[in-house]
Amino acid sequence: MEERIEISILLDFYGELLTDKQKNIMKMYYNEDLSLAEIAELNNISRQAIHDLIKRCYKQLLAYEEKLNLMKKSFEQKKIKNEILEELHKLNHQSEAVIDEQRIKKIEQLVKTAM
Amino acid sequence: MEERIEISILLDFYGELLTDKQKNIMKMYYNEDLSLAEIAELNNISRQAIHDLIKRCYKQLLAYEEKLNLMKKSFEQKKIKNEILEELHKLNHQSEAVIDEQRIKKIEQLVKTAM
Repeated sequence: MEERIEISILLDFYGELLTDKQKNIMKMYYNEDLSLAEIAELNNISRQAIHDLIKRCYKQLLAYEEKLNLMKKSFEQKKIKNEILEELHKLNHQSEAVIDEQRIKKIEQLVKTAM
Repeated sequence: MEERIEISILLDFYGELLTDKQKNIMKMYYNEDLSLAEIAELNNISRQAIHDLIKRCYKQLLAYEEKLNLMKKSFEQKKIKNEILEELHKLNHQSEAVIDEQRIKKIEQLVKTAM
């Protein structure tokens, strides 16, 4: 995954564990695409201080993901979610209008795995 | 929820954010039900130090939950999961052996809400 997108997603999961100031600056850089110079001016801090803060928070977010795996688990769950929705769609659109027990069992299994 | 059970669940969600030592002592106290004196002896630390560590980690776990709500979200998801499984069961055991489109749509909606 592209680093910018990855950090943006990690911010959604772990942003609350940063301070408000850290979170805001990370969002300016990774979500709003502002430059270090622009963020420095907006926050009245040196460009170097912004650079260091971003680097530190970046490492912090990766460390949280390494420990809790919320992003990884969420991706895995999304994949199974799509599989479930597809199976439900097939259930609803199969040629014979009878209950497909096999498919229902499969959906049950997917739900149990994912949630 | 009883405090001991709540902390035990929070340890499952956020234990990795504690140090190994903190996590082990919290598990001894909340999961294995050892006394402060027993934990103190096993770890070669004073009873007071164990007491302080547990109190500090307890607050830390509550603070993580306040910020990330992983336990709360998990409980909500489990509730919807059970609802989905119940609907799938009904789908499979309804009196007429025809497709119940309404029920399938409802399950779809539940899956989309929960995941």
